[in-house]
Amino acid sequence: MSKELRFQLGDYPSSVIIQENIPRLEELYPGAGEGGKDGGPGALLVCDENTAPLARRVSGDLPLTTLPPGEEHKGWKAVETILRDARRGGLGRDGLFIGVGGGAVCDLTAFAASIYMRGAALRLIPTTLLCVVDAALGGKTGFDLGGIKNLAGTFYPAERIVIALEALETLPPREWKSGAAELIKAAVLDGDAAFLERLQRPFTGPGGTPSSLEALVPLLERALTVKGRIVEADPREQFDGETGGGRILLNLGHTFGHALEAALGLGTISHGEAVAWGLARSLDLGAALGITPPGRETAIREVLEAWGYETAVPYPGGDAGFDRRFREALENDKKKKAGKPRFVVPGARGARVVPWSLEVEACLYSLLSKR
Amino acid sequence: MSKELRFQLGDYPSSVIIQENIPRLEELYPGAGEGGKDGGPGALLVCDENTAPLARRVSGDLPLTTLPPGEEHKGWKAVETILRDARRGGLGRDGLFIGVGGGAVCDLTAFAASIYMRGAALRLIPTTLLCVVDAALGGKTGFDLGGIKNLAGTFYPAERIVIALEALETLPPREWKSGAAELIKAAVLDGDAAFLERLQRPFTGPGGTPSSLEALVPLLERALTVKGRIVEADPREQFDGETGGGRILLNLGHTFGHALEAALGLGTISHGEAVAWGLARSLDLGAALGITPPGRETAIREVLEAWGYETAVPYPGGDAGFDRRFREALENDKKKKAGKPRFVVPGARGARVVPWSLEVEACLYSLLSKR
Repeated sequence: MSKELRFQLGDYPSSVIIQENIPRLEELYPGAGEGGKDGGPGALLVCDENTAPLARRVSGDLPLTTLPPGEEHKGWKAVETILRDARRGGLGRDGLFIGVGGGAVCDLTAFAASIYMRGAALRLIPTTLLCVVDAALGGKTGFDLGGIKNLAGTFYPAERIVIALEALETLPPREWKSGAAELIKAAVLDGDAAFLERLQRPFTGPGGTPSSLEALVPLLERALTVKGRIVEADPREQFDGETGGGRILLNLGHTFGHALEAALGLGTISHGEAVAWGLARSLDLGAALGITPPGRETAIREVLEAWGYETAVPYPGGDAGFDRRFREALENDKKKKAGKPRFVVPGARGARVVPWSLEVEACLYSLLSKR
Repeated sequence: MSKELRFQLGDYPSSVIIQENIPRLEELYPGAGEGGKDGGPGALLVCDENTAPLARRVSGDLPLTTLPPGEEHKGWKAVETILRDARRGGLGRDGLFIGVGGGAVCDLTAFAASIYMRGAALRLIPTTLLCVVDAALGGKTGFDLGGIKNLAGTFYPAERIVIALEALETLPPREWKSGAAELIKAAVLDGDAAFLERLQRPFTGPGGTPSSLEALVPLLERALTVKGRIVEADPREQFDGETGGGRILLNLGHTFGHALEAALGLGTISHGEAVAWGLARSLDLGAALGITPPGRETAIREVLEAWGYETAVPYPGGDAGFDRRFREALENDKKKKAGKPRFVVPGARGARVVPWSLEVEACLYSLLSKR
């Protein structure tokens, strides 16, 4: 089994291949194995401590950069480590960076590749559901700075993303739950309601894992197609979103979710849990503004609850400074325009962008202060 | 007096305006003055200790980042300072970065703008001849890492570059000499021999400065047009150069020049002095390979000598490890392809790219070991 989805993201072709096994180096980039020092363009594998064994399967001979795992290490220091190792490995401008891991490894590897000699070759092998469904595709790279998620980054799509199902076999239940939030987001954005219906029944394997990876493939394809089409239409996120469409739609659940992550401290909860909580907030706002019809609001809430996501306001366990930090983070959202954040809320079908207004502010105030 | 040269560099329009005075903020970006914290997109001025008074002329109200001057401070730390100040100033994704300074300030500001929230607005006001003629136009941004010049960077053209002649009034003779090397390079690349002829008479003002800034304008225009056309044809330097044209032509004198800078230690000599020395080496190689006709070789050497550039081999004053470091730097050149550096040498007209070969290696060996 092997499937390929091809996208054109601005200047960059980007394809996603879904297959059983971890690809070997020659599949990823013929000729890369010759090595930078010895006359070839050179290649570098980047992974974290959890994915090192998978990365070694791509090639036993390449230099390997092993990063400390987790969002809390997704800073400049990790980028610098990758760049120095690439240099030490003798990679030229035509050299290859291969990221094997979750969102942090993929974002960091892609960022490093995008700035190494102003842009080297890039392949990604995502190893978490979250990264498979969301982070690997779309060209966004980045790292955290000053406590702000992805404050620095570039637009640099991987030419090839290989989703190897065997890499997902040993994922713990927590990772499946985290990634499922992005599947739900894609289903809400999808024009076709059938996708959301399929997600009303959570993964039914042990502890909330999928009962079979094969059964997962159509869901992945659908979610990637939804995302890929949105990115193709607006690769660099230049649409203002208010005229419909645009990459900002992918921010559904994220404006609130990022603020939650910032207020709790980066790395305290998984990105997916934050997005699911943010989705619930976007339902609150959409319903209060009369944009999300009651039937749709209920359908989406039921899916979030079926998966067991925390959706309460305020978020349980926040300390005394939580409200202030949350509000500050929300007001400093990266996607703000003319100094104000914008919100994406589910509509009757798909989702809509809501610019800041006094009405939005009043709704937010009453939603966030209810206790 | 005001002139505008417009270029389209891949996806990015980029225009150069030559005018008398430092532009005011409103000329650069209407509306930017409203400030990030108060609802506007926000703007940040970046300069170094030498150019701070000029930067303040753009706007007295904007936040100002003052970097330590010089190539030796062109590292990640400076980039991080700019990004943190932008964040502190409340700049959004639609915020504006304005770089006022020489090559280091412009490269750093442009790099920071290119990665801030994955790309903010950018204007440059170059204040050295080198930056006016070369660094500000063309979209190359970057900083030094691990002792390698611009090891990290992006392609991100400024939408508007304003060359304000008054900013050049107080430049010391050393800066004019440094920048003139890029003028000479542009003249060698130019199809029209008249440009090189005009440079056979150096600047005739006090100490080697131009006798009048007005008289400089046609030279700047010509050099910018030569560069702009080459970049328009190959914005991301993807041509291999062996089929003619391509951005790599702009590397004339730079393969050797960068290796000289690396071997002496970054910042020991000016970039322009290194490029001029590298131009002399490319003449050695072009002549030895029979690519540079004797008459042209003589004409270019005469210009280099008229300007008083050091062109001797070995470079005077190098220590015992110089030869080894120079050779290592040359072999690790960023522009190498399949593990080998390439060279640009003057032809009968313009310049040509010479790939690595045993013949090139033999020529290089005999040139570089002659003492």
